[in-house]
Amino acid sequence: MPNNLLAGKVGIISGALNEHSIAWKVAQRAHAEGARFVLTNAPLAMRMGEINKLSEECNAPIIPADATSTEELGALFSGAQEQLGGKIDFVLHSIGMSANIRKKKHYGELDYKFFQQTIDVSAMSFHKMMAVAEKQDAMNEWGSIVALSYIAAQRAFLDYTDMTQAKAMLESIARSYGQRFGKLKRCA
Amino acid sequence: MPNNLLAGKVGIISGALNEHSIAWKVAQRAHAEGARFVLTNAPLAMRMGEINKLSEECNAPIIPADATSTEELGALFSGAQEQLGGKIDFVLHSIGMSANIRKKKHYGELDYKFFQQTIDVSAMSFHKMMAVAEKQDAMNEWGSIVALSYIAAQRAFLDYTDMTQAKAMLESIARSYGQRFGKLKRCA
Amino acid sequence: MPNNLLAGKVGIISGALNEHSIAWKVAQRAHAEGARFVLTNAPLAMRMGEINKLSEECNAPIIPADATSTEELGALFSGAQEQLGGKIDFVLHSIGMSANIRKKKHYGELDYKFFQQTIDVSAMSFHKMMAVAEKQDAMNEWGSIVALSYIAAQRAFLDYTDMTQAKAMLESIARSYGQRFGKLKRCA
Amino acid sequence: MPNNLLAGKVGIISGALNEHSIAWKVAQRAHAEGARFVLTNAPLAMRMGEINKLSEECNAPIIPADATSTEELGALFSGAQEQLGGKIDFVLHSIGMSANIRKKKHYGELDYKFFQQTIDVSAMSFHKMMAVAEKQDAMNEWGSIVALSYIAAQRAFLDYTDMTQAKAMLESIARSYGQRFGKLKRCA
Repeated sequence: MPNNLLAGKVGIISGALNEHSIAWKVAQRAHAEGARFVLTNAPLAMRMGEINKLSEECNAPIIPADATSTEELGALFSGAQEQLGGKIDFVLHSIGMSANIRKKKHYGELDYKFFQQTIDVSAMSFHKMMAVAEKQDAMNEWGSIVALSYIAAQRAFLDYTDMTQAKAMLESIARSYGQRFGKLKRCA
Repeated sequence: MPNNLLAGKVGIISGALNEHSIAWKVAQRAHAEGARFVLTNAPLAMRMGEINKLSEECNAPIIPADATSTEELGALFSGAQEQLGGKIDFVLHSIGMSANIRKKKHYGELDYKFFQQTIDVSAMSFHKMMAVAEKQDAMNEWGSIVALSYIAAQRAFLDYTDMTQAKAMLESIARSYGQRFGKLKRCA
Repeated sequence: MPNNLLAGKVGIISGALNEHSIAWKVAQRAHAEGARFVLTNAPLAMRMGEINKLSEECNAPIIPADATSTEELGALFSGAQEQLGGKIDFVLHSIGMSANIRKKKHYGELDYKFFQQTIDVSAMSFHKMMAVAEKQDAMNEWGSIVALSYIAAQRAFLDYTDMTQAKAMLESIARSYGQRFGKLKRCA
Repeated sequence: MPNNLLAGKVGIISGALNEHSIAWKVAQRAHAEGARFVLTNAPLAMRMGEINKLSEECNAPIIPADATSTEELGALFSGAQEQLGGKIDFVLHSIGMSANIRKKKHYGELDYKFFQQTIDVSAMSFHKMMAVAEKQDAMNEWGSIVALSYIAAQRAFLDYTDMTQAKAMLESIARSYGQRFGKLKRCA
């Protein structure tokens, strides 16, 4: 029962790996509601996943980008604007990864190289995305930038180990950059 | 008007650079209330500050330690227990540093190397301290581990730039490791 | 640009006094999106306002009810189900009144009779509505019950005087009754 | 191990019924730390409890007062200042009562007369206390006014029924009157 809610809107959706990804479902619904968008993922994640299938289903071009690299994010945002024919209405940041979780490290024995990587990939990438969007003046008026968080951002969930801190930081970035975008807009 | 509130208690106080440091005042009050403690700071910070003066005033030995190094933190905790004659009753984490703030980078142009350093020094060091304390079983029953946060951990303060995220992460670590210590104790 | 989002849904909308009321706008939008609903207000508020105009515009019958009276709320919910031909999909509680504010009493000189009335009308009425809905088993699966709050529910706003407490209580009722409805549904 | 922390301080402690009351323990500790204070409770509660025992133990006069009556609260504050020889340093509001809980009413069948009484006794009384203190200018510089809350003020706990709302309102009153006292002091 689509209602054409996103007719005319264009966006960037990251993090759709396979049909279990939240981003996958978001892409399908956005497509059903009339949006056009670019899909993106890290090159490595793309090899493991089935993003091509989603790309065909949604008629959405793919622009690979490592979200820890401001250069690749820059290419993503300029490429997306080119492919979609103008500024961006919505961005979905759906990126998270913890080698500490994968290796089943408990919270008392975290590997700190992994921890830094968790933060870099899962949180700092969100700041980078928005800094790129700001520099390129890539967002449309009333555009939306959304990241996926988890209640662990505000409570303790030991099994989620360092992702807990990544999500706390992600929400903090949302508050800070949200205020910055708000002030930039008021001054414009 | 001291009330002998910390008689018999021993601790570790980090981050006292000069008399403007919160940690400096904490050390003076803890001393006045009867506590014995070790002072610590990063070697670089020690050269810039006047920690020797505080050390004399409080009759507190100094053990230099870079709080980003688990090795040096290990030496700090074992050295402190040796000097103080037993397990630790209280720890003060009063460590924060942002090169982005020093260089007056606004929130839209943060340097990401600096950002990682801010996180490493100002937040991840707190996890490292507690992981070391756990490994050495260094804390006394009913001991306290305290870190200094700021309201920016929960709201947006653009001038505080990446320290905002560091404090959000610091509070998240407090929640997570607090739960872990609580569970370890219940199982002991 | 309606999108037919509420096609087939039926509801109860309280508190539309005139076109400055939030409930007024909600009713217009709900109508535009295809919902059918009953309008309600206190008899006194109806005399002061222009609800008949809205009733015609939205083709929505009016059932007067004093929201502090469980009897009248009972008649409202049974009447609404009769008029709408079945169970209710959505309820809007948009009711608030403070004689302390009207009389410009500052926070240190609140009249306590007025204060009780503020609580009764603006908060307790929400519990009564839901208790009636529960007793009549009036809500449809996946139905929504919404009350209008204000940030003062969670912070201090002195000019809002006793409405501050009413909204804190309103949100508390939402949490409690929300949990209750959730548990009733799980057990059903 | 008292530390003389409240030497020279005078206060009012409400709600000590018997040795299971939090207020009872507070009174004992305050006495041990050197405070002088007046005990108060509702006449009915006094008959049921053992406040005379506490009064002797702490050498603390009793001034009965119904906390829902501004008149009796006025007599309490003026009487306390007379007995203690000056303005008040600390007040403990430890008052809560719900006939709905006593009668084991579940959350869906609350008696609204009881609900109003719960609010009146357990929350509104806190506003009345502070309004009386303000009118009499009864508080000393840096004085403290404390009420006992419960986590239910911020979450849903169905067994706590209408006390949940009373505590939400109590905390809201604390925020509002705290701001008012802060502003009054700044203007003085």
